[in-house]
Formats: sequence, structure tokens, C-alpha cells
Amino acid sequence: MPLILVIGGARSGKSAWAQTRAESQARTPPGRLLMIATAQAFDAEMTQRIERHRLDRGPAWTTLEAPLNLAETLSDLHTEDVAVVDCLTLWLSNLMLAQIDLEPAFAALVAAASASPARIILVTNEVGQGIVPDNALARRFRDEAGRLHQRLAAAADQAVMIVAGLPLWLKGAG
Amino acid sequence: MPLILVIGGARSGKSAWAQTRAESQARTPPGRLLMIATAQAFDAEMTQRIERHRLDRGPAWTTLEAPLNLAETLSDLHTEDVAVVDCLTLWLSNLMLAQIDLEPAFAALVAAASASPARIILVTNEVGQGIVPDNALARRFRDEAGRLHQRLAAAADQAVMIVAGLPLWLKGAG
Amino acid sequence: MPLILVIGGARSGKSAWAQTRAESQARTPPGRLLMIATAQAFDAEMTQRIERHRLDRGPAWTTLEAPLNLAETLSDLHTEDVAVVDCLTLWLSNLMLAQIDLEPAFAALVAAASASPARIILVTNEVGQGIVPDNALARRFRDEAGRLHQRLAAAADQAVMIVAGLPLWLKGAG
Repeated sequence: MPLILVIGGARSGKSAWAQTRAESQARTPPGRLLMIATAQAFDAEMTQRIERHRLDRGPAWTTLEAPLNLAETLSDLHTEDVAVVDCLTLWLSNLMLAQIDLEPAFAALVAAASASPARIILVTNEVGQGIVPDNALARRFRDEAGRLHQRLAAAADQAVMIVAGLPLWLKGAG
Repeated sequence: MPLILVIGGARSGKSAWAQTRAESQARTPPGRLLMIATAQAFDAEMTQRIERHRLDRGPAWTTLEAPLNLAETLSDLHTEDVAVVDCLTLWLSNLMLAQIDLEPAFAALVAAASASPARIILVTNEVGQGIVPDNALARRFRDEAGRLHQRLAAAADQAVMIVAGLPLWLKGAG
Repeated sequence: MPLILVIGGARSGKSAWAQTRAESQARTPPGRLLMIATAQAFDAEMTQRIERHRLDRGPAWTTLEAPLNLAETLSDLHTEDVAVVDCLTLWLSNLMLAQIDLEPAFAALVAAASASPARIILVTNEVGQGIVPDNALARRFRDEAGRLHQRLAAAADQAVMIVAGLPLWLKGAG
């Protein structure tokens, strides 16, 4: 079923755009409106951000946590579900911190997202349009994020870039 | 009257695009062609940049300075005026340096820009598409810039992203 | 003949997009399919990257190296050639390291690219959409890259931004 990739910069409105899209596509129960959150709270700044996001979404949403096991979580979705994954760059960061091999993890994610009967909206950060970072880890992170984005955009039915809350359609406009 | 948000990266040609747009819309006197500059010269690099910009614009332009009091400046515009505000990210930086409360300042700006009878073109920097900055102040700055952009884009009649001097229309193409 | 500017972030898929485009436009011999590489290997990370790129392209491609003398290399192309220049930001970096005067180098590049009878696809990095860099050299680099992009986009028949492997047309869609 439709797979949408939503890419945007920090505070571009990409998450709000994805949530509004998901809410407009949600079905009656047993269909679920799911937030699949990849964030892990390592510090106070992140804890506050996670909690604010949860409050902002409201009670219609069910939150699942998938800091690492994202492919498995997507494989468990049902036909009537609408799910937002927010966000892939945090998931990538979690994989790198856990020193998990990225290539099989990317392949499993692409396969699970493509095969799922649910409507899935993948949210991710554009991180590659600034100056080359000083440190090698940051360079590797943005390289891997870029590779992941390309693979998912190729597999997706629709891809959109969000700038200032507004969509620039990359693929499958609508 | 028409409110346009122009967003672009460093040296993307956003200011030149905004100025050309403004010049094409300028009226005969008493209508003014206004540059509302938010820059403050703290060092030699910035002083040179401000002066070069002023010379580049030429004598048709009247420059008003509004490093902080931007909403008030917009409220004083007349129906026949065409004004470019360049740029909002410097204004935000000035607010943060002066430790001014951002939420009421953003609300006042959106209200003044929306209510003005003049043609207003707001220029701002995209700063959120690189790697997450190391320091917390830079992270806060890009978060606040993103929030400001979303609010202004929602209020604007037109929004456009400039890349390599060329427009990608986000809203109200034309 | 058609001059195309391809701009994109790190790992945006811009090089692959440009190569696919070039392969689809390549002529039979004596027409050549050329990769005009600007990279210089200063360290192991870059050496690996250059070699991986060369292997990825395959034997249909002829590689010319032009770390500095890019305008001269373009001036030597033939009518039947299709050439990808990858990438302009590395060329700019090489010029700055060699302390070469940028203004005449930019002018020569624009003139050579515009006058060439070959099909030329110029690949370059968007580096201006992150937070302002801390150091003055990085700030100068992104300023000069932005200026170069504007000049080439103005001269090009087509300009396109690549995000997640997908094109956003800036000029001359197609």
C-alpha cells in the first residue's frame, strides 16, 4: 500500500505535515493511527522534545517505540493501519551508536516498508546541504543518511520535501 | 496586500531575487521602494557586507534599519510602498542576543506583516538542512528559525525557495 | 549545446543522476562519454572514494582529471562528446587551496562551458543550507560556491536540484 517518504530540514514542519496526512487517511477501528517513534531519551533536551511531541499529537494516536527494531515493527502492521515513522535519521543514529551493520538493516527496512499492507509515512531529516562537517563520524552519518534516503525514495510511491511547512513534491505528487 | 516569503541558503541569490521582484512592483512616488535592513555591524566582515549591499542596490532604494523593531516598522508602511525585509534570520539572531522573548515577537511580526497595506517581501535563510550543530545555542537558533518560517509561510500569499538564483515555488506560484 | 547544472546535497544521488543522464545522451564513437573529475586525493578517505566512483562507472567511461584547469579541459571537448564534471565544489576547493584568483577562474569556466559544442553536465554540492559555519574559511567557501552556482545556473539551459535521488527542476524542466 502507499509508502510516502517525507524529507525536510530541522523544524521544517515535516512531522506536522506527516501527521496531518496520516490523520486524513486514518480508518475506523480496528484501524489504528500509529506513531512509530525512533527517539531514545539520552538527555534532558531530548526527553522534553519527546514528551512535547506526544502531547501535541493528542489521544487519537497510539505510540510504538522502535529505536532499533523498525523493520520488525513495520512487518507487524495491519492492513487498516496508518503509521508515521518519526524519524529515520534518529533510527540511523541509534544503529550507528549500537554499531549495527547498516547495509542489512537498510535492506530489511526497505523490504518491510515495501511489503507492508498498511499505509506508512516515513519522516526523515535532510542533513546533507550544509558545509562538510569537521569530524569523520558526522560525515559518515550524512553519507549513510543520504544513501538511505535514495533507497527509500526509489521504493516509495510518493516522496516530498517539506520547506517552511509546505510541500515540494519529488515523486507521485498529490 | 501580497505578502511573499523568500527562503534560501547562503549566497543562493535570494536577496537579488527579492529586490528584482520589488523593483518590478514599485509604484510612482509617493510610493517608496524600501529596504528594511535587520543587520547590525558587529565586526569588519559584517560592516563590509552591509556597505556592499547598499551600493549594489542603487539610489532608487530607501533603507530603513530595523534590527529589533521590525513589527513596528512594518506597521508604519503606506499602501503604495513596496518593502523588502532582509533578512529575518539576522532579526532572529538580534532578538536572541538581546534576550527578547521570541513568541510575542513572532506573533507581532506575523500580525503586522499580514495587516500591512504595503507589498512586503520577507527574505530569510534556510539553516536547517545540515548536520545537527554541536552547540545548544545554534540548535535553538535553527529550531526557532524553522518555527518562524512555518508561521510566516502559513500567513503569506506566496512562498518561494531560491536555489542558485532560481525559484522553486512553495505556495502561490507566480 | 545543452549545458545542465545539477546541484544536490551530500549523498543526494546527484552524481548517479548526472551519469544516467549522460549515458542516455551518449553518441557512438568517436563521441566520448567523459567523466571530468576534479578530485585530488590528499588522504585515504578521498583515495577510496575516488576509486569506488571509478569502479562504479564502468568501462564505457573515459576519465579526465581537471583539479584546476577545468575551463581548458572543457574548451578541448568535441561536438560529439558528452561530459560530466564532478564536481564543482571540489574544483572550487582546489582553487582556494592553490590561492588562485576566483573571479577570472569563474568567468573562464562560464565562458568555456557556454561556448562548448559538447553536451556538458556540471555536478555541484549545495553547501549553503545549514547553520553559519564557525570559521571564516568555511564561510568564504560557501559564499563563493553560492556565487558560482548562480552564475552557472544563469548560463545553463537546464538546472536541477537532486533530493533523495529525485529531481526538482529549477530551469528548463525535462
